Amino acid sequence: MVSADLLIRNGTVLAMDHEASIIEHGYVAVAGDTISRIGTDAGTPVEARKVIDAKGGLILPGLINGHTHAAMTLFRGLADDLPLTEWLNQYIFPVESRMDKDFVHAGTLLACAEMILSGTTTFCDMYLFEDEVAKAAKETGMRCLLGEVLYDFPSPNYGPVEKGLEYTEFLIEKWRGDPLISVAVEPHSVYTCSANLLAEANKLALKHRTSLIIHIAETAREIEEALHRFGKKPFAYLDSLGVLGPHFIADHCVHLDDPEIETIARNGVRVIHNPESNMKLASGISPIPKLLSRGITVGLGTDGCASNNNLDLFEEMDMAAKLQKVGNMDPTVLDALTTLRMVTSSGARALGFEKLIGSLEEGKKADIIVLDTNKPHLTPLYNPYSHLVYAARGNDVTHSVINGRLVLEDGKLLTMDLKEVLGRAKAKSKQVLSWLGKDQA
Amino acid sequence: MVSADLLIRNGTVLAMDHEASIIEHGYVAVAGDTISRIGTDAGTPVEARKVIDAKGGLILPGLINGHTHAAMTLFRGLADDLPLTEWLNQYIFPVESRMDKDFVHAGTLLACAEMILSGTTTFCDMYLFEDEVAKAAKETGMRCLLGEVLYDFPSPNYGPVEKGLEYTEFLIEKWRGDPLISVAVEPHSVYTCSANLLAEANKLALKHRTSLIIHIAETAREIEEALHRFGKKPFAYLDSLGVLGPHFIADHCVHLDDPEIETIARNGVRVIHNPESNMKLASGISPIPKLLSRGITVGLGTDGCASNNNLDLFEEMDMAAKLQKVGNMDPTVLDALTTLRMVTSSGARALGFEKLIGSLEEGKKADIIVLDTNKPHLTPLYNPYSHLVYAARGNDVTHSVINGRLVLEDGKLLTMDLKEVLGRAKAKSKQVLSWLGKDQA
Repeated sequence: MVSADLLIRNGTVLAMDHEASIIEHGYVAVAGDTISRIGTDAGTPVEARKVIDAKGGLILPGLINGHTHAAMTLFRGLADDLPLTEWLNQYIFPVESRMDKDFVHAGTLLACAEMILSGTTTFCDMYLFEDEVAKAAKETGMRCLLGEVLYDFPSPNYGPVEKGLEYTEFLIEKWRGDPLISVAVEPHSVYTCSANLLAEANKLALKHRTSLIIHIAETAREIEEALHRFGKKPFAYLDSLGVLGPHFIADHCVHLDDPEIETIARNGVRVIHNPESNMKLASGISPIPKLLSRGITVGLGTDGCASNNNLDLFEEMDMAAKLQKVGNMDPTVLDALTTLRMVTSSGARALGFEKLIGSLEEGKKADIIVLDTNKPHLTPLYNPYSHLVYAARGNDVTHSVINGRLVLEDGKLLTMDLKEVLGRAKAKSKQVLSWLGKDQA
Repeated sequence: MVSADLLIRNGTVLAMDHEASIIEHGYVAVAGDTISRIGTDAGTPVEARKVIDAKGGLILPGLINGHTHAAMTLFRGLADDLPLTEWLNQYIFPVESRMDKDFVHAGTLLACAEMILSGTTTFCDMYLFEDEVAKAAKETGMRCLLGEVLYDFPSPNYGPVEKGLEYTEFLIEKWRGDPLISVAVEPHSVYTCSANLLAEANKLALKHRTSLIIHIAETAREIEEALHRFGKKPFAYLDSLGVLGPHFIADHCVHLDDPEIETIARNGVRVIHNPESNMKLASGISPIPKLLSRGITVGLGTDGCASNNNLDLFEEMDMAAKLQKVGNMDPTVLDALTTLRMVTSSGARALGFEKLIGSLEEGKKADIIVLDTNKPHLTPLYNPYSHLVYAARGNDVTHSVINGRLVLEDGKLLTMDLKEVLGRAKAKSKQVLSWLGKDQA
């Protein structure tokens, strides 16, 4: 008899380890914040304070959203189907300039509710007032890598440009050692950050041994501008500044030629792919099979809700796999298992969290979700990887454990008052409309 | 005081009529199988035997799946990420050759459960043993346009080629006048049907004033073959056979040049777009904005579950809109309202059902769904069309009424025993594996 704090049993365990082990009629036992044992229900008996019956469903690692702007849930559906400049200048920028701490806190709580309900246990965030993001993630029990967005103009949070790195360092110090919250350095892009800001941001990241995260190679226009201003494409430019390396996380990476891919690979840069946002904003199709064949680590992100418009990683996987198939005119690329890795094992590696999470293995942190497959759209079940990528939806998740803590049980959120979160979000949406002068409409 | 059989109140009514009317705090009243009145809750009071509270959610027309092979739910996830010929020859064809009535009935019931649960009220089906499809649709209360697949080789249902049209006529006679079931004539494709079969099928469709439905212009290979065999592209070839017209429904239409589009438009042919299948099988991207700008009616279909792998039209809309944006490198194409029309008003027109369904208007048949929007991923709500296309999922549907009959209430299916349907589907999946010799694996 083995004892544990939490036992999830009677499910098909998809470990997402190196061998992609599948354990039928299996269990995962948790002691404290850690996976203590994995086995079959017929094997060594486990006694636990809390037992969860997976009812024949799937038990797998919690999903990892590699790139989002959580508080942008409050802009969900505010403006769609518009040219990028109109969307940014008439909606997003005017609202963001009026934004405050409470807005970001309310929006992030809403995002955490949506993410937990749809199986996400870790997210990587870039936005304004990131201390509020950290607080909201912490309150709801989510794991988060976050950083304040840095650029060459004043921020409604930290004020003048030169204060951005100070604020980032404050965040790093404040959250150091936290079991759930990690802080990165996050310059917005090569077109909004000076070479000096990028170099200083990199120094700060290296000093604190954390990640440097940036939006890059997202649009064709960005490439043209980089060629015009720097005489180089974005990755070649960053390489010339000496800021690339294994600590570098590159969000988007849509427009890449072979030399740019070579620069990514040579520097050990990790990539986060955001297919739904790239489709909705008509940015383009990232050459994911080429990146994978070059050995580059690729995670998956939803981007913010203004360009998606949800945070459902099941939908993101489905879109990712199908987009690559049609984009490459080859139905065999980005198969279901590879795609699922992008939100589990590869997703963890993309954020530098591969020793902590991303697979169900003894000794790893207990970030675990359970899916109910006893539903028409998941019946019959020949192949669990196929179902997770091509047929499942976020709401098929019934339970979620993050760092050993049960945060979702039978579809009910345990770490927040959903009614209050929704009410606060609705109030903030009225504020948004008034900022835009649309409250009389 | 007005009296009705059924009243759905306290919701935002999206009529999807010509003006895209939106009625806040509205109701839809049903008398028998017909929408008898639409208004605001504060207006004329309605007394009804059954009242459904939409709780501030959305009330809209039931969704229309313009092309599927319902029973293929039993192949969901059986084989993915494979080259088309391997998928067909090693999985689909060997199983279909062993298929029987009971298999199709079980698979269609599973499909109906999934469709009703995700807001679909009408589907258009092409498969084998279609009398079983009609029975299953009828039992579950779904509206259906269906037809037996016809081709130049023996069928496990009707036997020799020459019996296909006879069987189709039997179906037409059997279901004539049924309020829910309509029968079409459905030759499979130009590459599997002789010119003679196509001409005879067309005669039968015209004789019975029903639709002629075909897969067409799905893959690049099909176009090449048509050029090689007929010296013409598929639509030009069918035009030369004289079978095109306003009764013609063309499924897929991926590979079209301008003359082919002109042939479609000139003949009043209606088109069903299947983006998820076209992506997953790497068939290509249909030029939907061109078709729409040419005034061609376009509906949306999921295709079968072997190439999707679900029947969720919310996901299909999301994929359709985003695929066209990235495919045309223009974020303004296929906006949310246009996309929603493809599964409602335009979807109805695409099947020739525009006088019956597709919008909420007094006098139309009562096919109505209710969506719960009080959820994190649908909060806040600035624009209902945006939410339905970009953020909602099938399971957000709480109620469904088809032809005046309540078939889904608070997420519970009223017309079938879900446990039995799932159990039967699971048993059939074991049969599939044994047919493929994979039951020992």
